[in-house]
Amino acid sequence: MPASRYTYLGPEGTFTEAALRTLPEAATRELVPMVSVPAALDAVRTGEAAAALVPIENSVEGGVTATLDELATGEPLMIYREVILPIAFALLVRPGTRLEDVKTVTGHPVAQPQVRKWLAGHLPDAVWESSASNADGARLVREGRYDGAFAGEFAAATYDLEPLVTDIHDARNAETRFVLAGRPARPAARTGRDRTSLVVWLGDDHPGALLELLQEFAVRGVNLMRIESRPTGEGMGRYCFSVDCEGHISDRRVGEALMGLKRTFPRVRFLGSYPQAGAEDEVARPRPGGAGRPGTTDGDFASAAEWLARCQDGRA
Amino acid sequence: MPASRYTYLGPEGTFTEAALRTLPEAATRELVPMVSVPAALDAVRTGEAAAALVPIENSVEGGVTATLDELATGEPLMIYREVILPIAFALLVRPGTRLEDVKTVTGHPVAQPQVRKWLAGHLPDAVWESSASNADGARLVREGRYDGAFAGEFAAATYDLEPLVTDIHDARNAETRFVLAGRPARPAARTGRDRTSLVVWLGDDHPGALLELLQEFAVRGVNLMRIESRPTGEGMGRYCFSVDCEGHISDRRVGEALMGLKRTFPRVRFLGSYPQAGAEDEVARPRPGGAGRPGTTDGDFASAAEWLARCQDGRA
Amino acid sequence: MPASRYTYLGPEGTFTEAALRTLPEAATRELVPMVSVPAALDAVRTGEAAAALVPIENSVEGGVTATLDELATGEPLMIYREVILPIAFALLVRPGTRLEDVKTVTGHPVAQPQVRKWLAGHLPDAVWESSASNADGARLVREGRYDGAFAGEFAAATYDLEPLVTDIHDARNAETRFVLAGRPARPAARTGRDRTSLVVWLGDDHPGALLELLQEFAVRGVNLMRIESRPTGEGMGRYCFSVDCEGHISDRRVGEALMGLKRTFPRVRFLGSYPQAGAEDEVARPRPGGAGRPGTTDGDFASAAEWLARCQDGRA
Amino acid sequence: MPASRYTYLGPEGTFTEAALRTLPEAATRELVPMVSVPAALDAVRTGEAAAALVPIENSVEGGVTATLDELATGEPLMIYREVILPIAFALLVRPGTRLEDVKTVTGHPVAQPQVRKWLAGHLPDAVWESSASNADGARLVREGRYDGAFAGEFAAATYDLEPLVTDIHDARNAETRFVLAGRPARPAARTGRDRTSLVVWLGDDHPGALLELLQEFAVRGVNLMRIESRPTGEGMGRYCFSVDCEGHISDRRVGEALMGLKRTFPRVRFLGSYPQAGAEDEVARPRPGGAGRPGTTDGDFASAAEWLARCQDGRA
Repeated sequence: MPASRYTYLGPEGTFTEAALRTLPEAATRELVPMVSVPAALDAVRTGEAAAALVPIENSVEGGVTATLDELATGEPLMIYREVILPIAFALLVRPGTRLEDVKTVTGHPVAQPQVRKWLAGHLPDAVWESSASNADGARLVREGRYDGAFAGEFAAATYDLEPLVTDIHDARNAETRFVLAGRPARPAARTGRDRTSLVVWLGDDHPGALLELLQEFAVRGVNLMRIESRPTGEGMGRYCFSVDCEGHISDRRVGEALMGLKRTFPRVRFLGSYPQAGAEDEVARPRPGGAGRPGTTDGDFASAAEWLARCQDGRA
Repeated sequence: MPASRYTYLGPEGTFTEAALRTLPEAATRELVPMVSVPAALDAVRTGEAAAALVPIENSVEGGVTATLDELATGEPLMIYREVILPIAFALLVRPGTRLEDVKTVTGHPVAQPQVRKWLAGHLPDAVWESSASNADGARLVREGRYDGAFAGEFAAATYDLEPLVTDIHDARNAETRFVLAGRPARPAARTGRDRTSLVVWLGDDHPGALLELLQEFAVRGVNLMRIESRPTGEGMGRYCFSVDCEGHISDRRVGEALMGLKRTFPRVRFLGSYPQAGAEDEVARPRPGGAGRPGTTDGDFASAAEWLARCQDGRA
Repeated sequence: MPASRYTYLGPEGTFTEAALRTLPEAATRELVPMVSVPAALDAVRTGEAAAALVPIENSVEGGVTATLDELATGEPLMIYREVILPIAFALLVRPGTRLEDVKTVTGHPVAQPQVRKWLAGHLPDAVWESSASNADGARLVREGRYDGAFAGEFAAATYDLEPLVTDIHDARNAETRFVLAGRPARPAARTGRDRTSLVVWLGDDHPGALLELLQEFAVRGVNLMRIESRPTGEGMGRYCFSVDCEGHISDRRVGEALMGLKRTFPRVRFLGSYPQAGAEDEVARPRPGGAGRPGTTDGDFASAAEWLARCQDGRA
Repeated sequence: MPASRYTYLGPEGTFTEAALRTLPEAATRELVPMVSVPAALDAVRTGEAAAALVPIENSVEGGVTATLDELATGEPLMIYREVILPIAFALLVRPGTRLEDVKTVTGHPVAQPQVRKWLAGHLPDAVWESSASNADGARLVREGRYDGAFAGEFAAATYDLEPLVTDIHDARNAETRFVLAGRPARPAARTGRDRTSLVVWLGDDHPGALLELLQEFAVRGVNLMRIESRPTGEGMGRYCFSVDCEGHISDRRVGEALMGLKRTFPRVRFLGSYPQAGAEDEVARPRPGGAGRPGTTDGDFASAAEWLARCQDGRA
């Protein structure tokens, strides 16, 4: 029964699975690993699954382009939740392997820059070869193809390996953001600390278009949280922008900015409004974007609309 | 009966009276000259008159500050009509006076720069002394205090003078814009070629405030037609801005810009939306501001609002 | 000998003369009152005078348009000093006149709004008639044409009148700014608290031109102190802008902004860089415009230029 | 002898090698394939090679993050040339393999989205597994691990394979841009159709920082060609921007924009000015960014600088 099935970027033992398991409802869902981000999302599109959890951004590696591009194109999907997971790697080896025995290592290409410095310091002669996922790397270690795999410590049990070294990461606070995507429906309820995601195509790439895009947000006091250019596939120099802003589509300032973008640019895809991960934990995660611009609360919008009505009625 | 009374900046025989007489309804109104712009407008505020016609802008002299300041402060008034009148002066003299007899001339201070070059060329030795109005100057010529007065040719009859020279002006296309102000009521109906007037107080004069003001218009594709800074009287460096923009308050782009200003700045006074003078005469008066920005028609706003509603309902 | 002669907007006894006398060098100059701002400035243009002091801005009335327009056009002049004078009026009468005897009053049109409230409260029935200057009004009272004149208290002695009431003003801190203009030469030395004046013609009045003008300043962190639109005389809707900004032409950020304007707009007239009045008196006059934008000191410009040179040499 | 050695992202038979061979000097250089972008670039940093050719951007996949991040950090390098290569894949198989025999395919992860549609249409059941490079995939086909590899047709000979299908690509005009990086030295000579690359760190991520970055370019009329956000590794929401603009560092408008960025932002890295690929072929590649803003030629800058000097000397 699909409503109870969630797909995720597999295989088992990846950070994505770990992220998915932080969601309370995961306990009552059938969690199905998929071979790729497109596969995980397509299962939702076809109705085989209710939702899919996929990585979208890494604080070291940047945007996960497969996810960005899949959400931007094809049958529309919407984001309902986000999960942010701190990322630290363990070097998983077959039981008994010592550090000096490790001549070949593997892991997902995204893991490589995060373990590069550790490798240079501890295994300078080890040869790196990429695998399709961290968990796949673990499997290949199990099969004897490599001596060590960088993966989440939680993957050791799944693959009968042991973590020789743990907590390996290059950047302080490395973390990955995952999103739970489903078919379009009403957005998640407004919490007051929300994130809204969208994709904007600039159309004819006239020089000032990106400036205009930013001004639609700025003039309404809406702070950007993330902006990434993605090629449209129509040739070098043609971009669309994947954008996250603070706030919820039902916040008046966000709604007006979205309408401004919709009017101004040839194509806008709304990808959802959803609670910011860590919103319940104000101290640990400072409010991004700083203090808001005055005059941008829903109350300010309502007052201004009343004033306009009074002007139109000759009562101002 | 006040509803049938219009005041204007007098005395009789001024350009303001001539402008007022271009309004069709003037034929059925009691037209009362007043001694000053404040007096003309105060008669409307107190209910003694239904409306007042006063000059607001001259293409050579700039804004008529008495009018700008009177409309910005005190009991609110609203503009319902504008009249633009080409300005050319006649040199009015007592019958029989020859050009070489003219030793002293007078006129309103605003007239002086417009006749200066003519004076330098034709009456280089004539002494100029300002009078309270052009018509008042004509009266003083009649009384013998000056030899000639610069005024509208139409004033000659009123004061038993004759126009010795006509069509005197320094700048090509010199013209004055007049506005008909009444007590607040519903704005004039939208015509599709309208002007909206307002006053915006920037509050704490932080450096970027004027830029923000302009961006509220620019981001909605609303063109400015006129902007003038006026001191607020709270000390050097404190300004408010008297602004005219293209469009009508009932145009969605204008309404949204007005609400944006209202939210952003501490004080905004709406002074009316009214047909642009000469709107019926497209050829003679090219559309100011050039082609509009795409995505700013009422239809574009309606489409964007529908799209937003679909997004909020999960139907986008 | 012209070098020792300063003209000013006369007649004797005006605020302009009072402002001129605050300049130390005034004590050793021949001070010549002129009938108008153009006359005072033309005397400098022809070489009959070394400099002219004229009012340019009033905190209640706004820009003095005759001065703004005279400096914007004709043979170029430059501003070397500014003087700010608090404005308060005295009601000057012939000795023996009592307040209840005052039926007619006069004064310069600029004085009228500043004494209007006082008149309404103390002489509600007095008839106002404008005179060419406050001092001229005093003369006309001396000659018996009016009962009272609003002028500076210092004018009483000149015209054998006595101040019946003093310290009349409508707005707190009413003050007038005067500028000392001479023929073009090297600007006044930089003091660190300077003002730079210029006039910018926008050319084809495309909607965004004023925004572009402001951005040339904003992007270099140069704060505007004053901006006034003035008609160019080429028809309604055609403006140039008279602008004052903080800083000196020799400040790198100001120089770059000026060059940006010069490149972008069809015509720019530099009117001088000169010490801000009251710059020596930091407590009384807070720094306008607030804290500057980072990266805009001369040192920052020099560092950036060195960095650019290193980049061009391959040494960055 | 290093001066004659160029590294590139290997192994042999990749598009990078094909791109490198389009450079005339490649004929006289020792061309050394390296295992990764970092390895190729580090060989230049250590002096083992004179330059390295690496992919930087793909019109379908977007920025090559390994290259962007390697150029942004570590010992500085500079870009001296770019090569743009149309991308089309061949399905390489061992001689004798028929299409229906192909059950497993491989290729670089970047190739996957470009062949996805072709796969869905022609080999819907084939299993994709990523390899470290397209050429590596070819090698693995040679070794029998996979049945087919997507790679450039030119790789067939190197690996004793044959192209079963050619000209496979998903997007029209798919192409990859490569850059030739060397140690810092004088930039390539200005050609009049140049590209300048840099990285800008926004520092404290205040909401308007990206707007300010864009305005530094816009106000000088410099068009952006590419902008990509990259995480700084200091936590989610912290970005730097990798930017390409039109023009050469020795163009005055570009130099001034670079200095503005250097003054405004905490860190800017200049990555070189170099001829735009295809600049010699105006018809095939239309000028990006459209017509320039007026007043931004070197002549305009020189005139403005002369004007400023005249103002400072009192000769304006």
